[in-house]
This record gives sequence, structure tokens and C-alpha cells, in this order.
Amino acid sequence: MQHVISVLVENRSGVLSHIAGLFSSRGFNIDSLAVGETQDPTISRMTIIVTGDDKIIEQVNKQLNKLIDVIKVQDITEDEYLDRELVLVKINCTSQTRGEIVQIIEIFKAKIIDVNQKTLTAEIAGPQDKIGAFLDLVKPFGIKELVRTGRIAITRG
Amino acid sequence: MQHVISVLVENRSGVLSHIAGLFSSRGFNIDSLAVGETQDPTISRMTIIVTGDDKIIEQVNKQLNKLIDVIKVQDITEDEYLDRELVLVKINCTSQTRGEIVQIIEIFKAKIIDVNQKTLTAEIAGPQDKIGAFLDLVKPFGIKELVRTGRIAITRG
Repeated sequence: MQHVISVLVENRSGVLSHIAGLFSSRGFNIDSLAVGETQDPTISRMTIIVTGDDKIIEQVNKQLNKLIDVIKVQDITEDEYLDRELVLVKINCTSQTRGEIVQIIEIFKAKIIDVNQKTLTAEIAGPQDKIGAFLDLVKPFGIKELVRTGRIAITRG
Repeated sequence: MQHVISVLVENRSGVLSHIAGLFSSRGFNIDSLAVGETQDPTISRMTIIVTGDDKIIEQVNKQLNKLIDVIKVQDITEDEYLDRELVLVKINCTSQTRGEIVQIIEIFKAKIIDVNQKTLTAEIAGPQDKIGAFLDLVKPFGIKELVRTGRIAITRG
């Protein structure tokens, strides 16, 4: 099962490598990971998306909690949460196809952040299904580069 | 100096921990890191923001290139690039302050993704200066939770 784990950590050298190491030592591949500062710049929040056996993930979470630089571990998979991701995508275009690509971008309320003779770069943020639908629509034009942040999640209420 | 490093890696268990370990063994703290799949799901792209001595970062990049699961390392700091980040922020609100918060959200073209009696959750994507200005404006209302993806970057053209 896919788990969404939110971890508050001290913003120190080595924390990320420790945490990633705990998952990889159990053979888990992290599906996505995003790390950024919180309102307190000495504290960072990681959102980790990982697929695996529920019981083993629970064990990993317990081990995470024991790390000195880990402040709090929350497996929010079962909670009510909202998750979003940001994607930058450079799409091949010609003068013939540009209009259609721009139309798709407008429908999805994505943003054009760069354009030239041969490519158009869009920024899109949203839940996974929206981003998936957008990428499916632009894929036939040719995706030259795709950069994703990985999902971040926040509990409701 | 702050560096923006874009790394293409095989999507395998252990890669993240190796890469994070290379930086932390040199005493570097990664300012932010975002990992997500590319158009090829077996390959992920990491965007690493790290501050440190230029020469030592160059050495780290060379070592990264030697890792078996690393396909390509690009230090795009000196290139023309666009960088963006996504932030979810839960702001304290009352019936008196909600209107003003909503107005700020509209001005910044951010999105309201959740609201209840006591809080309002906004989603904002953009360059660092825009996100910084938005957070400065909502901070006085009280930030209850802040989740950031870390910056991702794409080269121009």
C-alpha cells in the first residue's frame, strides 16, 4: 500500500541521508520525496511517499522517531489530507501546434513560463489526477523535459 | 554560493541515500531537495539546492557522476533557468480576518484548497520572491502549518 509520511526534522546536515538510508536498508524505494523549510527555518518538513508492506513501514516509522534529528513522524495515509504536486514541463511545439498546446494549458489553468520557436514550458500544480490528465494530453506533442517536485500533503482542518 | 543541481538517476532503492550521504559527508546541508519521476518512470530527477564552496561542490558533483545509478549531473547555477516551488499553508482565521486573507490569496493568484471555522489552507506556486512576499503578508494572521516542496528548476529554451 502507498503511504504518505510527513516528517518534521532539525534542518541539519546528514538527516536526509539517515532517513533515506532507513528506507533503503529495508529495500523500500521512495516513490517521491520533497523537503522544504517550515515557518521555523531551523526545522524542515519532508513529505515521503513510499509503497510497501504496512507493518514494515510502521516499523520504519518507529525507527525514524528514534533518530535524534527527527522531531515528529506522522503517517497521514489514513487521515483526511490534501496532496498537491508541482510540475514543470517543456513541450515540443511548432507554429502549427502551439495554439492547441496553449489551449490545453488554459483549460487546465496551467501557466506558460517560457516559450521559443521550438518549445513551450508550462507550470502546473494540483492533485495527481489533474497533473496526470494534463501530461496525457500534451504527451503526443513530445515532452522534452519534465521536472516534478514530488507530492506534498497537508491534513485537513 | 547557492547551487542548483539537477540530477537524473535510476529510480532504485538506495540512490537517494547515497546522494544525500555524499553531500553530508562533506558537511553540506542540503537547503532543499525535490525528487520526482520523469517521463520515463524508471528514471527520476532530483533538484538539489545546496550552499557551499564552489570548488568543493564541483568535487561532489564529480563524485555523483561516478555513482552507478546516476545518469547525469548538471550544475545549472550559471545557466539560464526558471525555478519554481509549491507551498501549502494553513493560516489561522476568524470571521473577521477571513475576508482580508481571501483578498491576499486572490491578489497572488493563489488557491484556497480548504477552509473551516478556524483555518484556511492555501496553495501557492511560483518563484521564490513571490512565495516569500505572500508568506510575509499572511504571517501576521498566524501560520498553523507550512509544507514546501523545495525548488525545482528547468533550463530555458
